[in-house]
Amino acid sequence: MKAEIIAVGSELLTPDRLDTNSLFLTAELNLLGIEVLRKTIVGDNFERLRGAFREAMDRVELVVSCGGLGPTEDDLTREAVADILGRKLQPNAAVLSAIEARFRRMGRTMAAVNAKQAQVPEGATVLENPRGTAPGLWIEARDRVLVLLPGPPKELEGMVREHVVPRLARLSPSLRVYARELRVVGMPESDLDQRIAPIYKPHSEVQTTILAAPGEIQIHLRMWSSDSAAAGRLLDQLQSSIAMVLGDAVFTTNGQSLEDVVARDLTLHHATIATAESCTGGLLAERLTRIAGSSAFFLGGAVCYGNAMKIAWAGVPPEMIESHGAVSGEVAAALAEGIRRNVGATLGVGITGVAGPAGGSPEKPVGTVHIGLASDSGTKTRALLLPGDRERIRWQASQIALDMVRRHFLRAARPAERDAAKG
Amino acid sequence: MKAEIIAVGSELLTPDRLDTNSLFLTAELNLLGIEVLRKTIVGDNFERLRGAFREAMDRVELVVSCGGLGPTEDDLTREAVADILGRKLQPNAAVLSAIEARFRRMGRTMAAVNAKQAQVPEGATVLENPRGTAPGLWIEARDRVLVLLPGPPKELEGMVREHVVPRLARLSPSLRVYARELRVVGMPESDLDQRIAPIYKPHSEVQTTILAAPGEIQIHLRMWSSDSAAAGRLLDQLQSSIAMVLGDAVFTTNGQSLEDVVARDLTLHHATIATAESCTGGLLAERLTRIAGSSAFFLGGAVCYGNAMKIAWAGVPPEMIESHGAVSGEVAAALAEGIRRNVGATLGVGITGVAGPAGGSPEKPVGTVHIGLASDSGTKTRALLLPGDRERIRWQASQIALDMVRRHFLRAARPAERDAAKG
Repeated sequence: MKAEIIAVGSELLTPDRLDTNSLFLTAELNLLGIEVLRKTIVGDNFERLRGAFREAMDRVELVVSCGGLGPTEDDLTREAVADILGRKLQPNAAVLSAIEARFRRMGRTMAAVNAKQAQVPEGATVLENPRGTAPGLWIEARDRVLVLLPGPPKELEGMVREHVVPRLARLSPSLRVYARELRVVGMPESDLDQRIAPIYKPHSEVQTTILAAPGEIQIHLRMWSSDSAAAGRLLDQLQSSIAMVLGDAVFTTNGQSLEDVVARDLTLHHATIATAESCTGGLLAERLTRIAGSSAFFLGGAVCYGNAMKIAWAGVPPEMIESHGAVSGEVAAALAEGIRRNVGATLGVGITGVAGPAGGSPEKPVGTVHIGLASDSGTKTRALLLPGDRERIRWQASQIALDMVRRHFLRAARPAERDAAKG
Repeated sequence: MKAEIIAVGSELLTPDRLDTNSLFLTAELNLLGIEVLRKTIVGDNFERLRGAFREAMDRVELVVSCGGLGPTEDDLTREAVADILGRKLQPNAAVLSAIEARFRRMGRTMAAVNAKQAQVPEGATVLENPRGTAPGLWIEARDRVLVLLPGPPKELEGMVREHVVPRLARLSPSLRVYARELRVVGMPESDLDQRIAPIYKPHSEVQTTILAAPGEIQIHLRMWSSDSAAAGRLLDQLQSSIAMVLGDAVFTTNGQSLEDVVARDLTLHHATIATAESCTGGLLAERLTRIAGSSAFFLGGAVCYGNAMKIAWAGVPPEMIESHGAVSGEVAAALAEGIRRNVGATLGVGITGVAGPAGGSPEKPVGTVHIGLASDSGTKTRALLLPGDRERIRWQASQIALDMVRRHFLRAARPAERDAAKG
């Protein structure tokens, strides 16, 4: 079964408001095996509402709308739908007395304008709304199902759970959606696609979506099936084939963030970490401490914006800053080693760079970033030239620093894996 | 002129992703007097894309799309639009060499798959994309204008400002949207609405939207008019009436973030700042250093997660932590004073608290936060009990810390203002 969602409300066409009901609706519909093919956002306008509903009914069997069922002049969903179906609106006594009772419970008298909410198209089933005045409407017409829901999320969500899901469950088939995900760090989108296209292309029954964000790519595999075992097998096989060709670049297959993965690694290895950041300004510390329980592994971070703080907090030798410049591999390494020593952590990370927009030079343009990682096995550094604006450069630098920590533990794990493979 | 927006991407039809580009697009279009009548969200499917564009072109003069211009197999916007217009896709040498140059600058070779992004429908104008590989396309056909934009927000926003707005400005009429905004910190939404409703309610011609986020409320006033002077007068009058009743709680009327305002205050007063954070984990330092040029006022920040770092970096006396606990007004004040002294800054900020989910106690439940602000006029502290989860508690704490710095400068400015008023 295919569905479309229509979100009704002129406020949803301003720069300030987004329709978010459709996320909840999509999740509930997908669980029932119903795919959402389109979302339309339309204002409180009789003609445009008629158009949106008529077109959606031409395309799919199920049309779910939210909004436009209120008592005011510009609430027109009820009227527009009755009109295109050629059905009259009739006052419904049960709905009217429910609305009146609701007002009485609040100690108020029903405003005359609310009587409009008791108007029901001929043949429609009323869906009760214990959380508000606007009842929902379930309408079957011309082999189509229309479900009109109120806009306020609490009212809509309750009504969907109590009335809409049970009704749809009776109509919809056994088809369900199955999904897998991989997240990748440190690989350009085009490289990634060249490597994995030969794996996913032959399977047109699986919808493969590649979402690229700065410093991270997500690969989503989704398929509809009535055979959960077969779908699971195929998706697992595709997921592991993709993981194989991408190797270490895959950092999770279960939706974790990169800081989640690093937190897990630190915890598993009983390791601690300290950070000394210049251009990222505390972003790395902030990301590590987003994790609940981070005090178990995060000991301290220094945001050494000025050179004086690089010297005082991370023990960077002043003559090193003078000879190599604050933005250099040498200073990144010294920041990492110094903060590790001063804080007494297992790992130390140092970041220095030019986030821009000012401060670049021909030798060290905006985007130049050096990252150091110090551990008891020595210090590694990476020199980077990152694209984008200040925010993007800072984010990518924090992403690569986290990835260096993750790869440190991958290397640590390798020998053990080899031993295990022998056994 | 009327427009529709089409957001392209199968991920936008899952329960996980919303189209947010349309908010920015709507704001820019409205400023040009172009009203958005519908938003459509459609997946990466050739037939459905064709349908969405064809229908939109039947209804309005301007169709703006975002997404589906990437290099992968499922990026089909270019192809679908060329198909419904009956135009061939042709390789564009200038676009191809721009993409190749971009890869060279990053020290990489262009993947073969990126050549697809240099395919341009006959007669289309290429909109340069200095921030990514996908160029935009401006197509005039059958009295309609189609603008195809890339999905990544940074790329889209830059392209709209640099190429799309100047081109549309030449086409569009005299009706314009006029808008004013106020941002407020440290006031509950219901209090705020009670105070300002008597001001905005009598003006139904002005659309007033109140957007509440943790620790911040935005008030948007918008109206359509062909008389810019009259609209400006009315909006200015409403804005200043609202600012009057809300007083110091209003921190900007020109869309600045709270860190923008604090950065401006610090710069104007030739002041510097240092931070010592525990529960916010670097978030305050990170917000202050988001600002381009922050090295002029931000000297350094210590993320003192462990008590050892509170003692070493901010000079908090160990016996104070023992007697009052790390989460206390005394320690917040000591963090602020110690970091100010150690870094040699005009202002020092200290934050300590329980962000949760663990670590709460009956005396100090999750959400307990103490903030100190040290200056040459002494140290102020605030004790808070913040609602919400870890992320929300950390955000609100950083918000209130920034507000304390802002109010410090308000107090500093007051006497001078009084003097000026006498003159």
